[in-house]
Amino acid sequence: MKMLLDVDTGIDDGMAIAYAVGSQDVELIGIVGSYGNIETRGGVKNALNLLNLLGEDNIPVYVGAEHALNKPAFERLAVSARIHGDNGVGNISFEHPSIQKALDNGIDFIIQSVKTYGKELTIVTTGPLTNLAAALKKAPEIEKMIGKVVIMGGAITVPGNIRKIAEANISQDPEAAKYVFESSVSITMVGLDVTMRSILTKNDTMLWRQNGTVGTAYADMVDYYIDHVNAKDGCYLHDPSAIAAAIHPEWFTMLPMHVTVITEEGLRGRTICDPDRMRNCNPNVQVCLNVDSKQVLHHFNDVLNTVFNTAN
Amino acid sequence: MKMLLDVDTGIDDGMAIAYAVGSQDVELIGIVGSYGNIETRGGVKNALNLLNLLGEDNIPVYVGAEHALNKPAFERLAVSARIHGDNGVGNISFEHPSIQKALDNGIDFIIQSVKTYGKELTIVTTGPLTNLAAALKKAPEIEKMIGKVVIMGGAITVPGNIRKIAEANISQDPEAAKYVFESSVSITMVGLDVTMRSILTKNDTMLWRQNGTVGTAYADMVDYYIDHVNAKDGCYLHDPSAIAAAIHPEWFTMLPMHVTVITEEGLRGRTICDPDRMRNCNPNVQVCLNVDSKQVLHHFNDVLNTVFNTAN
Repeated sequence: MKMLLDVDTGIDDGMAIAYAVGSQDVELIGIVGSYGNIETRGGVKNALNLLNLLGEDNIPVYVGAEHALNKPAFERLAVSARIHGDNGVGNISFEHPSIQKALDNGIDFIIQSVKTYGKELTIVTTGPLTNLAAALKKAPEIEKMIGKVVIMGGAITVPGNIRKIAEANISQDPEAAKYVFESSVSITMVGLDVTMRSILTKNDTMLWRQNGTVGTAYADMVDYYIDHVNAKDGCYLHDPSAIAAAIHPEWFTMLPMHVTVITEEGLRGRTICDPDRMRNCNPNVQVCLNVDSKQVLHHFNDVLNTVFNTAN
Repeated sequence: MKMLLDVDTGIDDGMAIAYAVGSQDVELIGIVGSYGNIETRGGVKNALNLLNLLGEDNIPVYVGAEHALNKPAFERLAVSARIHGDNGVGNISFEHPSIQKALDNGIDFIIQSVKTYGKELTIVTTGPLTNLAAALKKAPEIEKMIGKVVIMGGAITVPGNIRKIAEANISQDPEAAKYVFESSVSITMVGLDVTMRSILTKNDTMLWRQNGTVGTAYADMVDYYIDHVNAKDGCYLHDPSAIAAAIHPEWFTMLPMHVTVITEEGLRGRTICDPDRMRNCNPNVQVCLNVDSKQVLHHFNDVLNTVFNTAN
């Protein structure tokens, strides 16, 4: 499948990039950067450097939105710097930084990609939904043309992670998320309901280290993440789970729902089944509520070990 | 199946009683009253009068808990009086009040029923979970003996009804609900996620009126409820949905989860998939997340029309 990745790179975004690059079923047509785990420009630089490390300099990287729809600027949360490191990728350094230049107009790239590939295209977002909302607002005609959007974000049945009722990506721009979920676009929602069911440990990253400098760099990066998140003996597989749901939906238990996002203070950023539309037909969102996490973890590690080995 | 009903009667509890009494698949062995929609004694009186109206004076009614586990007393909410009427059954009057006496020790009746019928018994609760928690605390040995508990309560994917994050039955006694959900008892949770998908209207109750004084009394009671709740063109089928899930689970989409209840202020009364146990095997709760509401409404009306007709 042709895939466009919308990321705020970020360590788990970095894992998602490697997973997409290495998956035989995926042709990654481009990456659009967003603010979130780090400022947009920093995240774009990380995406370029990771692609270079993976030997995939030919994949274009675009600069997307630099702040939420209704905010004048982005301020990085302290927790993001703590978990992802100052540079966003666990403070690893790149021996050979990418010489590829980022391209402007990430939002136009989304619009153009939909117009070029239509239903063939899967857009996977692992950051805030600002770019996608902006694309839908700028070119409303693409709403009916988009094949599928797979969103890492939200928490329907479980508590949030950035606040008790809100997941981090949705919380960054609830208005954008609400706009996207309430559109007619066919969405697969990969929220904390499933991402927290898959735990990556240092036993996994230890095996990555057997795959030369590339595997070692990725292991260094992810070990930083494991050391700084509050998961049990490892880290939750947030962003890579969205790639898994895109290419292997059969590993997930999904339920169709009309989803909305609360934007009012108090419960701001909560994703819920929309009570006003819950009796309507044909919900546009497939909400992932369970997952065969053994399959996901096995496939993810398998793909990454192969891509690391090839890239060296 | 042998069924024990734990109710706070209450108009929709009254509908659940008629549904259970009229269902050919159900042998109602007894009713235990709880506080909730009205004080326990008032709810017990309503249950006795409705059973008498339905010609089922032989079914015993027991007095259960009169307040939440951690509270010294019960204070009826203004919204309960508004929706259910001062007397709890839409202020209808009973021409021939029941002469049956309520029995004490509802909690002991639950314990004894489990010991007598074991896995054959289904307990359906449509009020707070105080009685069931008290029974489990008083006789812990019944935890492994209970067949199934079907709970009308909670809201996993949708907002609450008594507060934005809490459903009314759970909110009455979050500690009791937490105790029951976190036990090993096999539970079917029938929350707002599904009860709000089925809407009963005055078109339905108009047909009940064709079934003599009994159908007319029930129609008067439920029309009061429809006039005072904030649903669209009717009332949500809260408590009867639990009876439907007990006898026709195949009409519901259920997902297994470990469920817990937040007891801390702020989100007190919220039902969630327990993040600490979400990776554990064999969850004890089947959470109803979708329903074939046409089947439920058709069956419910069919059973009620028959029972009204027979009772006259």
